[in-house]
Amino acid sequence: MRQPRVPFVPPPSPVSLVGAGRLRAAGVTAGIKPSGKPDVALLVGDVAHACAAVFTKNAFAAAPVAVCREHLARTGGRVAAIVVNSGNANACTGERGLAHARAMCERTAALVGCEPAEVLVASTGVIGVPLPIERVLHGIERAHAELASDAAAAARFLGAIQTTDAFEKAWGEASGGLVCAGVAKGAGMIEPDMATMLAFMATNAPLAPAQLRAVVGRVAAASFNAVHVDSHASTNDSAFFLATGAAPEADPELSIASMERVAHRLAWLIARDGEGATKVTTIDVRGATSNEAAEDIARRTAHSALVRTALFGNDPNWGRFVSAVGNSPLAGDLSRLACRVQGVLVFSGGEPVVFDRAGLAAAMDADDVRLELDLGLGGGAARVLTSDLGYRYVEVNAEYTT
Amino acid sequence: MRQPRVPFVPPPSPVSLVGAGRLRAAGVTAGIKPSGKPDVALLVGDVAHACAAVFTKNAFAAAPVAVCREHLARTGGRVAAIVVNSGNANACTGERGLAHARAMCERTAALVGCEPAEVLVASTGVIGVPLPIERVLHGIERAHAELASDAAAAARFLGAIQTTDAFEKAWGEASGGLVCAGVAKGAGMIEPDMATMLAFMATNAPLAPAQLRAVVGRVAAASFNAVHVDSHASTNDSAFFLATGAAPEADPELSIASMERVAHRLAWLIARDGEGATKVTTIDVRGATSNEAAEDIARRTAHSALVRTALFGNDPNWGRFVSAVGNSPLAGDLSRLACRVQGVLVFSGGEPVVFDRAGLAAAMDADDVRLELDLGLGGGAARVLTSDLGYRYVEVNAEYTT
Repeated sequence: MRQPRVPFVPPPSPVSLVGAGRLRAAGVTAGIKPSGKPDVALLVGDVAHACAAVFTKNAFAAAPVAVCREHLARTGGRVAAIVVNSGNANACTGERGLAHARAMCERTAALVGCEPAEVLVASTGVIGVPLPIERVLHGIERAHAELASDAAAAARFLGAIQTTDAFEKAWGEASGGLVCAGVAKGAGMIEPDMATMLAFMATNAPLAPAQLRAVVGRVAAASFNAVHVDSHASTNDSAFFLATGAAPEADPELSIASMERVAHRLAWLIARDGEGATKVTTIDVRGATSNEAAEDIARRTAHSALVRTALFGNDPNWGRFVSAVGNSPLAGDLSRLACRVQGVLVFSGGEPVVFDRAGLAAAMDADDVRLELDLGLGGGAARVLTSDLGYRYVEVNAEYTT
Repeated sequence: MRQPRVPFVPPPSPVSLVGAGRLRAAGVTAGIKPSGKPDVALLVGDVAHACAAVFTKNAFAAAPVAVCREHLARTGGRVAAIVVNSGNANACTGERGLAHARAMCERTAALVGCEPAEVLVASTGVIGVPLPIERVLHGIERAHAELASDAAAAARFLGAIQTTDAFEKAWGEASGGLVCAGVAKGAGMIEPDMATMLAFMATNAPLAPAQLRAVVGRVAAASFNAVHVDSHASTNDSAFFLATGAAPEADPELSIASMERVAHRLAWLIARDGEGATKVTTIDVRGATSNEAAEDIARRTAHSALVRTALFGNDPNWGRFVSAVGNSPLAGDLSRLACRVQGVLVFSGGEPVVFDRAGLAAAMDADDVRLELDLGLGGGAARVLTSDLGYRYVEVNAEYTT
């Protein structure tokens, strides 16, 4: 039986979440998690900052997602605070869940001194169980009292948004006065939840809400929404993007490029921490008849249990990779399809290519694996990140009730 | 760690493949498989019989599939013989593969005394490797010499179409002079193949080719095409339906109903033998806005690794089941969604329902599990069969190269 490599330890981030300036953070233990670990987090702006967000496409969106959508529409994208709890997703909780999500915003607004609509809210954890709202509200008060603008406070924020994460996901960069930083959680499971992904990012660029809204879809598409650990979108997936304007001279283009890099790094860390994952595979589809076709092919390939088990097994199993392409109704003519694994051509023009199987298998035993599928038909391209599927995935996902 | 139940042993079929009459069968060892197991099978009609077939939708259809499509179009659905080899799928083999598939038909036609176009061909096994065609042709000659019309010959046919099947898949029924019987292989894996499904069915009803063609799509949709072991369609999937007319008085409606029952039983056996499967789950979606919506929901649920690992773990994890529904862009309003597992209501109207979790987990430890998802919106319905996903699936699919 193949042994997983040593546990992954991410390099520490050189810049913390509050590095974008005009932000304070906190994380406390409110008693939502039976483990006693931190479970209420607060991120507060010195003023209301420009904000845009992307949310789950699952039709069962959780109460906090519904409240966020409402608040962003009302304020046009001005956010003074984001309040988060872990340990309970406040999903599938009906009207009571909506009332609880609103109560979290109202209590935060009262403490911060802003409108409730200027507060956003996120939750992650078990679903279908009402929030212990009194504990949560008390936790918000304690978190507010502990707000600070140093890296240690940002670390406490990050600690309080974790669920079953095997390692902390934080990345940031600072260059020429421009700062962009973020933290994320995902994609571990808590029964009977699905893998929830939360991300919080802030840049010090002076982007207006409309500017942020115009780019976050693109940024998320190439990062958080490109992660396919399961074929499931969670009820609670949310990514928040703040622009504090602490660096009024920042170039918008440079700041957007910085956001893209940080978001991609966070997304990679999320995929690396997929349940039982031993590596991240970047699937690059090129030469498709359209971007839509490329996306369908990339998604089908990433979702295939046959592909994901082959990746776990370090098996350059071109038969599974190219047949995943053939499964897409949008694939078109496959006579020019070429498939590369870690840069090695394994299939071309409808037939397999002779390659060093043992050498390629060894090259696949890495944190980063690249699978390229070039259809040779047009300019359509797409990229997704996926985790492999091994014994630990089954263990994590099947061993709840026994 | 959850232990799989004892190996599944299917009950023997009361009627053999040749029970429909006017058929002879054979299976021999031609030396394609390194194991020395039988690998060439032949089914020959006393005359050319009415025939219709359904094939893989994968754009990488194998050479035998291309040749079958050509032959059926040329004869209008008259088939004198079907020749099969296992151990090599003759897929991703380019022009040479097409020539080999044609050569198999030609040699069979010469032996049987029919036109090559009246012969169909199927292959299963490794892909991307040229057929050892001389061995195959020699095997066809030996199989032809051993053709017989008894159950033992049908058993030899079945033996020679197997690859990694854990048990033989055969079912047939006879009632009031009407006979329908079939055999199948699937869905085991041979490196670097994907799970190929082959099925051969024959009825003694006097159905014309056009009558068969009109129903086989529907029959396959509710059986072979309803099986979702992986999210992959293989390059070689084929199901053949023959009508021998040995019972000239048979009622067409009754004979079609009989085909549906036999095909469903074979499909169930295929799902039960999914790699590492411990059970078959029938996913019934009802109350959707359209059949198309119901099919999308059913397929997404069956493909979800989260759902399949929960089924393996006997975990009535409604969060995963209902969020799989929410993942479908065709789901619509979910406020009336009800979810039942083994008949027990676990989720209703957007919120979980209190149920006996331990009792339901015990009830899920069965060969047959039923997952019902009722959207309460309309008349759209769909049914799929899926295997669960456990440790053995990972082992089978990841442990090739190591």
